[in-house]
Amino acid sequence: MKRMVSLCLLLSLMTAGLVYGASGDGALIARAKQFFEPLPSVMTSTENPVTPEKVKLGKILFYETRISVDGTVSCAKCHPVSHYAVDGLRVAVGNNCKLNPRNAPTVFNAAGQISEHWIGNRKNVEDQAKQALTGPPSFGMQSYESVEKKLREIKGYAPLFRAAFPEDKEPVTVDNFAKAVGAFERTLVTPSPFDSFLKGDAGALPVLEKKGLETFLDTGCMACHLGTYVGGQMYRKFGVFEPYWKYTKSEKIDEGRYVVTKKESDKYVFKVPVLRNVAMTAPYFHDGSVDSLEDAVVIMAKVQLGKDIDAKQAAGVAGFLNSLTGGIPQDAQKVPILPLP
Amino acid sequence: MKRMVSLCLLLSLMTAGLVYGASGDGALIARAKQFFEPLPSVMTSTENPVTPEKVKLGKILFYETRISVDGTVSCAKCHPVSHYAVDGLRVAVGNNCKLNPRNAPTVFNAAGQISEHWIGNRKNVEDQAKQALTGPPSFGMQSYESVEKKLREIKGYAPLFRAAFPEDKEPVTVDNFAKAVGAFERTLVTPSPFDSFLKGDAGALPVLEKKGLETFLDTGCMACHLGTYVGGQMYRKFGVFEPYWKYTKSEKIDEGRYVVTKKESDKYVFKVPVLRNVAMTAPYFHDGSVDSLEDAVVIMAKVQLGKDIDAKQAAGVAGFLNSLTGGIPQDAQKVPILPLP
Repeated sequence: MKRMVSLCLLLSLMTAGLVYGASGDGALIARAKQFFEPLPSVMTSTENPVTPEKVKLGKILFYETRISVDGTVSCAKCHPVSHYAVDGLRVAVGNNCKLNPRNAPTVFNAAGQISEHWIGNRKNVEDQAKQALTGPPSFGMQSYESVEKKLREIKGYAPLFRAAFPEDKEPVTVDNFAKAVGAFERTLVTPSPFDSFLKGDAGALPVLEKKGLETFLDTGCMACHLGTYVGGQMYRKFGVFEPYWKYTKSEKIDEGRYVVTKKESDKYVFKVPVLRNVAMTAPYFHDGSVDSLEDAVVIMAKVQLGKDIDAKQAAGVAGFLNSLTGGIPQDAQKVPILPLP
Repeated sequence: MKRMVSLCLLLSLMTAGLVYGASGDGALIARAKQFFEPLPSVMTSTENPVTPEKVKLGKILFYETRISVDGTVSCAKCHPVSHYAVDGLRVAVGNNCKLNPRNAPTVFNAAGQISEHWIGNRKNVEDQAKQALTGPPSFGMQSYESVEKKLREIKGYAPLFRAAFPEDKEPVTVDNFAKAVGAFERTLVTPSPFDSFLKGDAGALPVLEKKGLETFLDTGCMACHLGTYVGGQMYRKFGVFEPYWKYTKSEKIDEGRYVVTKKESDKYVFKVPVLRNVAMTAPYFHDGSVDSLEDAVVIMAKVQLGKDIDAKQAAGVAGFLNSLTGGIPQDAQKVPILPLP
C-alpha cells in the first residue's frame, strides 16, 4: 500500500511536470502563432496557376545558359540548389563577370513575398525571371526578341512549351518563360522544424532554439520578420536607430528603395528579407557585407531596435533561425536534362 | 487442310525472314564487338578504390565554389549534369571570366580514358581534379595550402573527409579532395542503347542507327574511336590528310600535344575524344569551333580518313552516335547540399 501511494505520488509529480512543460511550450507555440504561420505546400498565384507542365518546363529553363549573352548565365548560376539557392558571394556575378548591385537572395520561398529583389523593383517571381533576361549584369540579352529567337532555335523546347501553354498559338515566348520559371519557383517551399512547432509539435525545437525564439519575440524582431515566410512582407529603413554602415562592413552606402521611388522617405529602405533558410544563405544583408549569422543578429538588434544583445542571446536567436532551415523539395533536387537544338 | 498448309507456309516464310534479319543483325553485333565493349558499372582504379563514402564526399565537393579564388568556380560550373557535364561554350570560362585554352570535355565516362584533357596533360581524373584547383584559368587558387585552409574553414567537411579517409590523421587535404572527386567521377557511367545492342539486343538500335554504325565501321572511324568508351584510348594527329583548320571554324591553330612533349611528331596531336554522349555535348573539337554533329562527322571523315561522305551518310553516322547517349546515374542527378562553415 505504501509502495502504491509512493507510485501514485511519483506519477502525479511526473504528470505535473509534463503538464507544466507542455503548458510552457503551449504558451510559446500560442505566442508564435500570433506572428507566424506554417508554409503552404505551393505558393499559388491566380495570375499564373501552377501546373505540372509549367513546373517541368520551368525547372529546365532554370538551368538554361544558352539564353544569356555569353552562354554562362542561368537562374541556377546565382541560385544553385546545392547552396540553398544562393551563390555565397557578396554580390551576384552575371554575364562577362559583371557585378550585380546587390546580394542574390535565395529563390526558396521567395514567391511568398510582396515583391522581389532587395528594393522591391520586381513585382513577383515571374517579373523577376523575365527582367533578369535583359538585365545588363545578369543574362545581359539585348532584347526579349533575341531570347525568343534562342529559345526557338533549341528545338527540344517546342513540345515542352506547347504542353505547358496548350492554348497559345506561339507558346515559345519570354512571357511564358517567365510563367514557367515562376511556376517552378512557386513550388520551392522548404518546410522546417519550425513549421512542425507551429503545428503543435513542441519537440520539433530543442530547448536552445525555443529560448532563441523567445529572445526573437522579446527583442521585437517579429515586428518586421513575421508571417509565413518570417519576412518578405514589408519595406523598412535599414538603420532605424543608427546608420547600418556603422556596424556592417559595407563598402558603399546603398540608398535602397529610394532608387526606385525617388522619395526621400525611401532612403536606405529595403524589403525585410525572408528569414527562412537564413542559416544556409550567408553572407548577409543587401551587400553581403557580414559573414556570420550571430554578427548579423547583433547588428539587427542594434540598428533596427536600439538594443544591445549579448553573445549568448545572439547565439540563441541564431539557434532559432536554424530551425527555419527546411527540406528542399525532392523534385527540385533532381537536375533536369536540357533539350537539344 | 489447305488452310493449314498456307499457315505453315506463312510461318516458314516469317521464320526465314526473322532468321535472315537476325543473322544480319547478328553479323553487325559480332562486327561491332570486335571494336567495342559495353560500359562497366563503375570505372575502377586500384590507386583510388571507389567507396560510397568517397563518392558521397566527392559529389558534394564537385559543387563546391568556395574553394575557388573568386568563389564562382566549381567542377559543376564547366561540367553541369543538366548539360551532360559540358558547358556548351567554345572554351571553358573559369574564375574572373578567364578563358581556358580548350573546350571542356564531359566528365561522364571520362575516367576510362588513358589520360585527361585534350592534350593528355592530366594523368587521370584525380590528377585533373587536383590540378584544376590551382589552374590559373580554372579555380585559380594560389596554392594547395590555400585550398586546404578554405576546406578546413568549412566545418561541415571534417566528418565527411573523416568518413571517406578513416585512416588519415588529417584527412582534409587536397589529395583527398582529388580522390573523392575522382571516386565520384568514376561512378559517372552512362549506359546507352548501344550497350544493349552490344549485349545482343538488336532491337536497341533503330534501322537508321544500325545503318550509321555500318557507315562508321566502313569509313574506318573505329580505327581510333574504339573500345568501351568509343575513344579516349590513344593520341592522334588532328588532320592526317589535310590541316584541320581548313575545315573547322578554328580561330587559331592549336599545336596540341606538342605543348606537353615538345616533340615535333606531337604537333596537332590530341587525345581521340570519347564519343559517348557526343550528341549532347556540342560544340565540337578541342576548340569548340563546330556546332553541328553532322558537320563534325563530315570534317572527321575528310581530314582524318581522306574520305568525302555525303549528307545522308553523315546523318546516319550522327544517328549511330545518338545511340551513345546514355542514362545519367540517378544519384548523380540529385544535387547535394553543401556543408556549412
